[in-house]
Amino acid sequence: MSELDKKAIEISSRYKGKIQMLPKVPIKSLDDFSILYTPGVAAVSKEIAKNKDLSFHYTYRWNAVAIVTDGTRVLGLGDIGPEAAMPVMEGKALLFKYLGGVDAIPLPINTKDPDKIIETVKILEPAFGGINLEDIESPKCFYILDKLRQILEIPVWHDDQQGTAGATLAGLITSLEITGKDPRNIKIVLYGAGAANIATARLLYKYGIPYENMVVIDSHGPLYKGRQDEDEMKLENPWKYELLEKTNKEGVKTVEDAFKNADVVIAASKPGPGVIKPEWIKIMNKDPIVFALANPVPEIWPDEAKKAGARIVATGRSDLPNQINNSLVFPAVFRGALDVRAKTISDEMVIEAARELAAFAREKGLNENYIIPKMTEWEVYPRVAAAVGMKAIQQGLARVSLSYEELYSSAKAMLDNVRKLLSSLT
Amino acid sequence: MSELDKKAIEISSRYKGKIQMLPKVPIKSLDDFSILYTPGVAAVSKEIAKNKDLSFHYTYRWNAVAIVTDGTRVLGLGDIGPEAAMPVMEGKALLFKYLGGVDAIPLPINTKDPDKIIETVKILEPAFGGINLEDIESPKCFYILDKLRQILEIPVWHDDQQGTAGATLAGLITSLEITGKDPRNIKIVLYGAGAANIATARLLYKYGIPYENMVVIDSHGPLYKGRQDEDEMKLENPWKYELLEKTNKEGVKTVEDAFKNADVVIAASKPGPGVIKPEWIKIMNKDPIVFALANPVPEIWPDEAKKAGARIVATGRSDLPNQINNSLVFPAVFRGALDVRAKTISDEMVIEAARELAAFAREKGLNENYIIPKMTEWEVYPRVAAAVGMKAIQQGLARVSLSYEELYSSAKAMLDNVRKLLSSLT
Repeated sequence: MSELDKKAIEISSRYKGKIQMLPKVPIKSLDDFSILYTPGVAAVSKEIAKNKDLSFHYTYRWNAVAIVTDGTRVLGLGDIGPEAAMPVMEGKALLFKYLGGVDAIPLPINTKDPDKIIETVKILEPAFGGINLEDIESPKCFYILDKLRQILEIPVWHDDQQGTAGATLAGLITSLEITGKDPRNIKIVLYGAGAANIATARLLYKYGIPYENMVVIDSHGPLYKGRQDEDEMKLENPWKYELLEKTNKEGVKTVEDAFKNADVVIAASKPGPGVIKPEWIKIMNKDPIVFALANPVPEIWPDEAKKAGARIVATGRSDLPNQINNSLVFPAVFRGALDVRAKTISDEMVIEAARELAAFAREKGLNENYIIPKMTEWEVYPRVAAAVGMKAIQQGLARVSLSYEELYSSAKAMLDNVRKLLSSLT
Repeated sequence: MSELDKKAIEISSRYKGKIQMLPKVPIKSLDDFSILYTPGVAAVSKEIAKNKDLSFHYTYRWNAVAIVTDGTRVLGLGDIGPEAAMPVMEGKALLFKYLGGVDAIPLPINTKDPDKIIETVKILEPAFGGINLEDIESPKCFYILDKLRQILEIPVWHDDQQGTAGATLAGLITSLEITGKDPRNIKIVLYGAGAANIATARLLYKYGIPYENMVVIDSHGPLYKGRQDEDEMKLENPWKYELLEKTNKEGVKTVEDAFKNADVVIAASKPGPGVIKPEWIKIMNKDPIVFALANPVPEIWPDEAKKAGARIVATGRSDLPNQINNSLVFPAVFRGALDVRAKTISDEMVIEAARELAAFAREKGLNENYIIPKMTEWEVYPRVAAAVGMKAIQQGLARVSLSYEELYSSAKAMLDNVRKLLSSLT
């Protein structure tokens, strides 16, 4: 066991967990409960009974997000069950607070059945302002997310899909600028066909990159029409099958042919090194863009990729340049969505988050080692939040209407206060 | 709208709710997340994957209680729905923290179907160390509680049942002492046959008061064998029907006959005054004990009851002597149950809580105006918690074994710290 592992276990044991529920109203004595609880509280309940949306105004619901997992795909550990998923969900709750000011409640649940998960979340809707699905295995995560986005009137998010896709798009936007490539005329290899890359393909398409210019590679090689397992895939993973149908206009059948003349590779497959081969990068188009996003070790180390000709390399690691990290996305997206009491998080809102991340980096000055903001650039979070909130308002998805200035300054004040409060707690 | 109502609305609006989720571990910088989140957290998850019970040791689960309501019987407001129930559940969460040190999560849910409620709670079990059912209408609350106590391996509690029954029993124990009455030889009238009194009847029986010495009165009068609605009741409310069968050995059919020679009346029916009539008290046995527990106005005002001959009167009000209040019970019962990682809260544990409340009052010095501790007597909570925890250990219902001294001192330290923390937050 590593020192880090020991420390993680020690701290969990010493503090008996990592989060706590606390009042945000003053309580000076028991007398205060006549206002905070009965009999005074009845007046608040009566107001909400007249208009349910007031629950976003009078209760903490507006800022409360459930982190729902069935424990089937926890980190790289696989299906370890809901109890064992809890430490990860607590950590996620801390990130939600630290970077987004969100009150996140871990809900590891005791069912793996997709329809039961959907039903449970629907039943929990009145308690929350948003839902964050976490570490649910593919392909059922697509079904669950799509369905919940249809039936809920609060935002639903699956970070392994939208968070990764949003961060990836942000880095791609700036990488294409640096290399002078046109999104409509590039060839992209998506290496790996799990939750992250399937969602990324869908988001890139919405952004304006034609499906036909993408090639998606799974453990059996590129997806192409007529592949041997086509029928099975159609049945078992219609989301992947959709990509099989729509991508790969050239019908390439080998990994080498996929990489040939590709401008971009986005790998979200399995920990490397040695998963992406240098010789594949060598046959890519001029100025290759390589995103090797597996954790903890990227599919190819940046040095090796650069030696093979890569112009820009991004990974998921905080100790290397160009970290593509969901945490740049989900806290701010939720901040913005919650602040306008959004009814959903649309793809356009995610794209807006990516654009704002790109804009921020652009203003700071793009280069091969700076394609996306760093997580410690605190100014970026309220900017992304405000941009996302504005998009929700534009799209008619918000319950309240605010100006950009109002959204930005309230998000900024909240996030500054949270970091101040948290450092005072320690 | 009263001043109190306005203040309750104002404070809910100003603070946008009453609770928040915060870290309980220090976070100095983003670097800490390598221990609090990935990659370090994986080591903690792996430990729990080997032994699920370790989730009570390494995560906040051990101290987390879900406050589950379907919003069908919120305060005196009836079925106002889950959204409108939220302010009440938030207030309850504050009480849980303030008096019990518990991290309580409000979960107003979007189903009224008893089996769906049961299924949902079962699905949520891995996220919590305990479940508090709240403001669920009768009679389905009996079915839900009984079933959940069977199928869950964490404590389940319905405050409107067990909390009220426990507090009532505590006050009854001391009242009988003061009046020199023997629990096995008294006649008790239970006025009202809702969740509270049905649960009280069941608990009093477990404590040693024979069912046959009780008479339960609903809106149609006393329950007796052969009553016109007997068959209907058997079908629709088997819990009430059980009392019809087992109580009222004399078969009295009128309210007057029920009160005649009764030693005790426990009213949990509807707000008074004028619900319990003075002339009924006049025909009771010597030294009548009158619990008039309806809120906000008791079934009969204490002055009136005393004038009619009552020796001891208790109500639910904090501004009158002898407040019978669930809040004396549920925070400490959960504190004790959670501290020993109990698998359930048995009736014996509730009785133990009542006995300890009575013992505390006895030590302070019982009299007609002091039959139960006051809520501001802070020393009582850790005592009740420790007594409940010890009972769970004795009954083999605890996951860990601790001495009374350990239980008491850890509960006391926690509750003292919570009140200190909360007053520093204000």
